[in-house]
Amino acid sequence: MEKLFFASDYMEGAHPEIIQRLIDTNMEKTIGYGNDVYSESARGKIRKACNAPDADVFFLAGGTQTNAVIIDSVLRSYQGVIAAKTGHISAHEAGAIEYGGHKVLEIEGRDGKITAADIRSLITDYKQDANHDHMVMPGMVYISQPTEYGTLYRLDELKEISRICREEKITLYIDGARLAYALACPENDVTLQDMADLCDVFYIGGTKCGTLLGEAVVIPRPDYIPHLFTIIKQHGALLAKGRVVGIQFDTLFTDCLYDRIGENAIKTADVIRKMLLDKGYELAFNSPTNQIFILLEKEKADEISKKVELAFWENTDDSHVIMRIATSWATTPEDVSRLAECL
Amino acid sequence: MEKLFFASDYMEGAHPEIIQRLIDTNMEKTIGYGNDVYSESARGKIRKACNAPDADVFFLAGGTQTNAVIIDSVLRSYQGVIAAKTGHISAHEAGAIEYGGHKVLEIEGRDGKITAADIRSLITDYKQDANHDHMVMPGMVYISQPTEYGTLYRLDELKEISRICREEKITLYIDGARLAYALACPENDVTLQDMADLCDVFYIGGTKCGTLLGEAVVIPRPDYIPHLFTIIKQHGALLAKGRVVGIQFDTLFTDCLYDRIGENAIKTADVIRKMLLDKGYELAFNSPTNQIFILLEKEKADEISKKVELAFWENTDDSHVIMRIATSWATTPEDVSRLAECL
Amino acid sequence: MEKLFFASDYMEGAHPEIIQRLIDTNMEKTIGYGNDVYSESARGKIRKACNAPDADVFFLAGGTQTNAVIIDSVLRSYQGVIAAKTGHISAHEAGAIEYGGHKVLEIEGRDGKITAADIRSLITDYKQDANHDHMVMPGMVYISQPTEYGTLYRLDELKEISRICREEKITLYIDGARLAYALACPENDVTLQDMADLCDVFYIGGTKCGTLLGEAVVIPRPDYIPHLFTIIKQHGALLAKGRVVGIQFDTLFTDCLYDRIGENAIKTADVIRKMLLDKGYELAFNSPTNQIFILLEKEKADEISKKVELAFWENTDDSHVIMRIATSWATTPEDVSRLAECL
Amino acid sequence: MEKLFFASDYMEGAHPEIIQRLIDTNMEKTIGYGNDVYSESARGKIRKACNAPDADVFFLAGGTQTNAVIIDSVLRSYQGVIAAKTGHISAHEAGAIEYGGHKVLEIEGRDGKITAADIRSLITDYKQDANHDHMVMPGMVYISQPTEYGTLYRLDELKEISRICREEKITLYIDGARLAYALACPENDVTLQDMADLCDVFYIGGTKCGTLLGEAVVIPRPDYIPHLFTIIKQHGALLAKGRVVGIQFDTLFTDCLYDRIGENAIKTADVIRKMLLDKGYELAFNSPTNQIFILLEKEKADEISKKVELAFWENTDDSHVIMRIATSWATTPEDVSRLAECL
Repeated sequence: MEKLFFASDYMEGAHPEIIQRLIDTNMEKTIGYGNDVYSESARGKIRKACNAPDADVFFLAGGTQTNAVIIDSVLRSYQGVIAAKTGHISAHEAGAIEYGGHKVLEIEGRDGKITAADIRSLITDYKQDANHDHMVMPGMVYISQPTEYGTLYRLDELKEISRICREEKITLYIDGARLAYALACPENDVTLQDMADLCDVFYIGGTKCGTLLGEAVVIPRPDYIPHLFTIIKQHGALLAKGRVVGIQFDTLFTDCLYDRIGENAIKTADVIRKMLLDKGYELAFNSPTNQIFILLEKEKADEISKKVELAFWENTDDSHVIMRIATSWATTPEDVSRLAECL
Repeated sequence: MEKLFFASDYMEGAHPEIIQRLIDTNMEKTIGYGNDVYSESARGKIRKACNAPDADVFFLAGGTQTNAVIIDSVLRSYQGVIAAKTGHISAHEAGAIEYGGHKVLEIEGRDGKITAADIRSLITDYKQDANHDHMVMPGMVYISQPTEYGTLYRLDELKEISRICREEKITLYIDGARLAYALACPENDVTLQDMADLCDVFYIGGTKCGTLLGEAVVIPRPDYIPHLFTIIKQHGALLAKGRVVGIQFDTLFTDCLYDRIGENAIKTADVIRKMLLDKGYELAFNSPTNQIFILLEKEKADEISKKVELAFWENTDDSHVIMRIATSWATTPEDVSRLAECL
Repeated sequence: MEKLFFASDYMEGAHPEIIQRLIDTNMEKTIGYGNDVYSESARGKIRKACNAPDADVFFLAGGTQTNAVIIDSVLRSYQGVIAAKTGHISAHEAGAIEYGGHKVLEIEGRDGKITAADIRSLITDYKQDANHDHMVMPGMVYISQPTEYGTLYRLDELKEISRICREEKITLYIDGARLAYALACPENDVTLQDMADLCDVFYIGGTKCGTLLGEAVVIPRPDYIPHLFTIIKQHGALLAKGRVVGIQFDTLFTDCLYDRIGENAIKTADVIRKMLLDKGYELAFNSPTNQIFILLEKEKADEISKKVELAFWENTDDSHVIMRIATSWATTPEDVSRLAECL
Repeated sequence: MEKLFFASDYMEGAHPEIIQRLIDTNMEKTIGYGNDVYSESARGKIRKACNAPDADVFFLAGGTQTNAVIIDSVLRSYQGVIAAKTGHISAHEAGAIEYGGHKVLEIEGRDGKITAADIRSLITDYKQDANHDHMVMPGMVYISQPTEYGTLYRLDELKEISRICREEKITLYIDGARLAYALACPENDVTLQDMADLCDVFYIGGTKCGTLLGEAVVIPRPDYIPHLFTIIKQHGALLAKGRVVGIQFDTLFTDCLYDRIGENAIKTADVIRKMLLDKGYELAFNSPTNQIFILLEKEKADEISKKVELAFWENTDDSHVIMRIATSWATTPEDVSRLAECL
């Protein structure tokens, strides 16, 4: 019997509607670098979905790339980016932000989130330090929605963070690598329009939400980042066949596919969460989206891992470990049943 | 009637065999970051085609990205890369190499090529300069096969360049963005095996040779670039669904598709070249591969451009311009006939 | 009456013997860039003092510059440097290490110091993480002797740290900005020879220890950092008149001036520490060298600051602050008496 | 008999008035990082000399450092700097500009100079190129006064260059490493005030004009480069004892020392030039300042080099070489007589 995979939400190819669209358009000739009709159409649909008619929209290949390009293009050399210690840019991008010359100003955070008060405190400390001219100036706040731990920022929390950023004239940037799973979550009260209202840049995740690859950067106020096209090229992040991502996002934003695509992941994750609690497993974080974190004894983790591929998260002590189960748009009832048997 | 496109070799999606393979494998679950079975299989086939059984093979998304990652991972901070002034890295990558901290040591070159003597001379000048400790040390030679002007290095030329690089202990790197069009060209006498023998790193182009995206980096001697996986991640160049490129290269190296895929481009280019000369057009460079450069009066260029999309190359004087015609694996006899009518 | 200065140890020009030497040699002609006879002589004396006859010795202008150059020249792009959260490179170099592309892997530490166990734990976590290829690899340990809080590493602690670094093949680098004050401290049991034995690179501080400017980098095993001269030039850190620092270090290492120069600072600091405790002040850290950290109520701190210039260190809460008193080779008994009156 | 040195203008310590001032102020206590009274006084005098009452003035240690800091702080990541191929930043800074991420857009130039027409042409080519979004955008013009070949920009030439820069909204930056020798040259018609009027940033050279070290950056319009203090720190270019450079520039701008200090160099260079022509030597460039370039047969160059230290400049062919003679504020009539005997 085939091994069961619950390690992540990027284990299949693309959503069938996307693959079909790639097939249908395959032999058409289009101009390159994202100036094709499909990319243009996708931009229009995204602007509409975000209620941001003038927004700049760019398509990139992946999340680390998007974070590196955006952070580097916004910050001046003497500025750093505030993020949770558990933020993707802090820990799991192999130093991509530092490679671009910028310090990640880490906040301890809680369950993957940072608060407006944390941010305020970091900025105040910086400003009150008599030697702050010898220190890295906070120039941006980076948060993820949902976070790396599957948790969500509530609208009121996001508004508070946005208010501080605007008061302090620093950029608010939201990493939406798994945004579809937030949008489909009943607990979520933050819409695409809210994000466009409250932040300066954000990206709508594709790779983890059903595309072969690709993320859509949205900059609600146009020209907030001048010459971003050239910066993307300089970072090696410009695809010659820009249509490859454009067509996929055009499909995701046709007939509200992006709203629908996360639903299955949330439903199956809910089933699994209930099942885990019923079986007496302990959850490490209280996350309502498509990622579930279980605290396991190492031996138990090893045993389960023989039957189902989970993602290692962290060692909590010498004998315990946190493992992640991720569902996706592609998770089937059979997958869930088989998982139930393994646990 | 639809406009005719001859502007480049990346105007369609992917070769039909590739698209079919993406469809067939779409719902399979695989692990990420290029460790899947398809990427592994593609690596094996590429090693075999190159007669380099121990080679490291990595898949990246595009050419500028590949150049930036490889050059940055090989050079030490005080080293630069020797390249033709017309090399892609010199002129058309928006400063990606300099963004990584390295100077491009430009050689004037001829028809897109540089010679062993040019390289020898640059290195000798450096070494003989009493102040060379205050200068950028040559650490790599970058050439393209075929070049940005469609010309080819002959095997004896490549051997001579390789010999110098080995004597001087500097890296020889070949950009094969359009390699399929060299391999399919009757004038070409350099095989994949020769490249693996003679250079330290090269890449086999996908984007311009029939994939949706993707390039395959080949490093004949394993571990020549330690920790390249992490460097790729740090540059934002690691695809979560690495299989997307792996499957495409696995297809390109199944049943010799990569050998076949350039043939149509060369044949149609030959027809067009003959037709142009018959009609009295002047070719700017003598290129035997899939790129054709015509010297035109500006007015004539504008007139043609209304009917067929060509690529602007350069202004030669106030009244003349060089335009590029590119054929590809997808160019049809109908395209050629229609082009004949437009010219 | 003139204001009293105890804010730092770099408030005067140079030690009188150094100034005299600069006067005596002023009109001699020497070649540039550190190849002059005085720099050469200083190198010889430093090698002897360190019992490292083959050591490479380079002279740079200041501490942040030295840290940036050394860290950047040792680390590969995918590596970071382990340091205390309170280390100079972590907090007070305006992101110079990140500007060079490297993450500072911060350890909480205690009283400015990190332990071998801390380092071991960070490296083990990295190695055991299933995703460590997506993370910054530890490539160097940075410690300061004395630390930014005036504390000292004991020889046994340093040996333990050195042992781990050698086991793990990572570089051990010691920032000796205030090294003279460690060497002159009775509590210190680490000699220059020990440092040369136990670490891969260290620098002997000049600016804070009696020169106008300048630090001496010692690399016990020659060619541990190839082409460092060119790297220094590339960082804008090469002085045309290299002699300016060479002459000063030649003087510091003539007749053991570097051993003597810290003594006065230690003696006067001891007097001040005793005086503070007698007067009921609370010391924030237990530091035996030339830096004294007092915990003060903010109002008290403001009051004292009107009469004597101290250095602000940090706010501990809304009403308390840590202020630093620093003595130096130039602190006079009169300065100490006047300080006594102010407190 | 001692060897004669004419290799450069930085072979002695400092001008006697400067050394005296360092002695006189040595034991005064001042605050650090250039905020001391001497640096402040020097700033005032420089503003006055430049007729730029609001100018920002910063003191750095050396020329390469100053160029790297200024260029990096002005340019955005996607921009490059236009310079002569013979410019110091193009050839002799070990890639410091590229280390900061920026391409040097080289112009062939003539006798070390570039023309307004050259600059206009480069910018026009960039703007007219259909693919300029894939290219490095010109963001600054870098020129040297006097140039690396000892030649001078005339006021009308400088005005023309300035006009283009303002039209195109790109920064004009002048490297004045040897500015004193321009100001003292009878052929020169460009004053400090002209420079402050016509360019956005320039630096007044110290190291090659009589200081131990140090250059003064002048930014006529304040805040043209925001947060430059922190950028300087981040580049490791901030001296803790900022006074060391401040005092030297305060002296240079007291009683017009900076106007006087170049006179001797020009006079002695004139004598040497006449002597060389009388003896039948061939000058490689027609330079009126303190640098003289002689074209010599290699054998002759070797013979002379045994008796007098000259600077190697370049090989012109297999049997000829250009050597440089440099005079300075410190060149004596005896030096000149002895040189006459050697030639």
